Amino acid sequence: MQARINHPDIVEPGGVIGILGGGQLGRMLAIAAAQLGLKTHIFCPDESCPAGDVAAASTKASYTDEAALAEFAAAVDVVTYEFENVPAETVSFLIAAGAHVHPGAKALEKAQDRLHEKEFINEIGVTTAAFHGVGDLASLEEGLRKVGRPAILKTRRLGYDGKGQTTLTDEDLDLPGAYEKAIEFAWSEVGAAPSILEGFVPFEREISIIGARGADGAIKLFDPVENVHRGGILKTSTVLAAITNATSEKAARIASHILSELDYVGVIGVEFFVLRNGDLIVNEFAPRVHNSGHWTSDACAVSQFEQHIRAVAGWPLGDPARHSDAVMENLIGNEAAAWRALAAEPSACLYLYGKCEARPGRKMGHVTRIRTKA
Amino acid sequence: MQARINHPDIVEPGGVIGILGGGQLGRMLAIAAAQLGLKTHIFCPDESCPAGDVAAASTKASYTDEAALAEFAAAVDVVTYEFENVPAETVSFLIAAGAHVHPGAKALEKAQDRLHEKEFINEIGVTTAAFHGVGDLASLEEGLRKVGRPAILKTRRLGYDGKGQTTLTDEDLDLPGAYEKAIEFAWSEVGAAPSILEGFVPFEREISIIGARGADGAIKLFDPVENVHRGGILKTSTVLAAITNATSEKAARIASHILSELDYVGVIGVEFFVLRNGDLIVNEFAPRVHNSGHWTSDACAVSQFEQHIRAVAGWPLGDPARHSDAVMENLIGNEAAAWRALAAEPSACLYLYGKCEARPGRKMGHVTRIRTKA
Repeated sequence: MQARINHPDIVEPGGVIGILGGGQLGRMLAIAAAQLGLKTHIFCPDESCPAGDVAAASTKASYTDEAALAEFAAAVDVVTYEFENVPAETVSFLIAAGAHVHPGAKALEKAQDRLHEKEFINEIGVTTAAFHGVGDLASLEEGLRKVGRPAILKTRRLGYDGKGQTTLTDEDLDLPGAYEKAIEFAWSEVGAAPSILEGFVPFEREISIIGARGADGAIKLFDPVENVHRGGILKTSTVLAAITNATSEKAARIASHILSELDYVGVIGVEFFVLRNGDLIVNEFAPRVHNSGHWTSDACAVSQFEQHIRAVAGWPLGDPARHSDAVMENLIGNEAAAWRALAAEPSACLYLYGKCEARPGRKMGHVTRIRTKA
Repeated sequence: MQARINHPDIVEPGGVIGILGGGQLGRMLAIAAAQLGLKTHIFCPDESCPAGDVAAASTKASYTDEAALAEFAAAVDVVTYEFENVPAETVSFLIAAGAHVHPGAKALEKAQDRLHEKEFINEIGVTTAAFHGVGDLASLEEGLRKVGRPAILKTRRLGYDGKGQTTLTDEDLDLPGAYEKAIEFAWSEVGAAPSILEGFVPFEREISIIGARGADGAIKLFDPVENVHRGGILKTSTVLAAITNATSEKAARIASHILSELDYVGVIGVEFFVLRNGDLIVNEFAPRVHNSGHWTSDACAVSQFEQHIRAVAGWPLGDPARHSDAVMENLIGNEAAAWRALAAEPSACLYLYGKCEARPGRKMGHVTRIRTKA
């Protein structure tokens, strides 16, 4: 099957953005695309998906369904995704079918493998936590000697919101066999899957930068935000972050450097640890719109969602300046049941994702409270 | 066919808002509903409609198709509309089928008939232009004696953006038969339809207020905006309007009074003429979200679209305070072809409506330029 009119580099109004994944990020991307006069086509295996309700077209199929993927590639002008764990084979197949996919395969490959991601970040001269690839108990022990304890063992692939990882504490393990048992337990916790051991970073705070790179190489960054996690899940993002201008500028330089080195097109979320002395350590990046960028919908002329659509559609990037300060709070599990009280709060911008079931730990919505810029 | 679970007064997240009409206002309402976790169902007779691309469901049928209307009434939790010329029979049928329709029949009836609208406004003690009902040449002459010249003859029903109206100038008509010819010409211009003759108002500027009334009777008003028309079509809306606080407060009192007297639920747009001495004359009201309120999407925590959805869904109204000043400019006809340059402007929020064909006079999009509040 032939792809549509050679996938022009610029998707004009009326064109179709294909989105892999139909969660809340896809939903907010679809809304942003519609505001620019673009249609969206959601590709998602789930029975009901939040993005489908606001998309001009939806395909419900597996990411390995080649017939469905070929039809999808032919029906859209560009393909993007809302989650970094899109199977590499899916993207390869779409590219072979003639689709333009943004962000590209390089960013996706690095982001899908925590070991490759950290190696890449170090290769371009940016600091990460100490780390060591783990493939068995022996390499885990070797890693612990290298990075010390406490340390975090994470699967190289998949896992998010604290899933697929376990911490090796620095508590006393001198009792006979205790050290070995702790190691074996950790290894079983990650399912004996290829993993990465990361050294503990004594950070003072966590920040992130949402940045974008256009098809023309232009880079625009939103202001850095300060993130607070609860139970491994982002709870709040606050802009401005309580960091110095020097730290903020350094974070911006690093984010720009990563965008350029990945030859990136689209929005990226780069997470940092800030040390007491202001030094920055990159934790990870997400090759997509990012939960810590939701505040941009309410505090900037152009949101991260619109910025991403602009980038992948070959449009000029928008102005990332913020007009207000903001605190974004995720509504997790049954917290969204308080929607009525939240809706009544002045200066609160409420978003609910249209998910039917409020499972514990599930992101059901968010609220952004804006205030006059300090 | 039975209506859905008795149409509860409060539509909870996951519920369905039915919208009559599928143009850009319906499109922006659908997006606002989605952000609150509500689904939308668009009812529209047109083959392709801008709102359908962002709605969970669409019905393409005539407003007189009773079977389709009954199914629609049964599928949604509340019905609203994006244009005031919904046939009264359509609304009656939906109500008989068990649907809750907001805004209600009273507002719709007044807004659909320019004579009833002005009579209503006068009855509640608010000033309009001088007017006279016209049903034939004799009553037109009578009206001219009453309201003077220049005067504007408008059909009582339908017509918008300057269509269905003609101006009777105050130029010299002393040549034999000239006066009679001018009157006959005007009468033919409105198709000899039941009309209203309105006296000329020597206004200094035009303003409007976008207000909302909740199901609980609470009223919230956005700041008044100043409107400039071109060729009978709104071109720009600017907030703040260049009016005194006293005029602003008076406009707010009038808008609130109209909302209460109509026992209104939803967003209304009230248009005023401002005289040199600061006096206000109500031009008309629109029982729906209004073009002159588009700026609220970018300069307020809660937009007019979200405010309308909140009202008709029985939610608390949102905070209408503006965080920024704004100038909204309509993109009419081929003006939207400049989308690339507009997208590149800093602080510009661009909206394109996804219409295929850029006919002259057709609203294709708008751009809101925001700036720091003065």
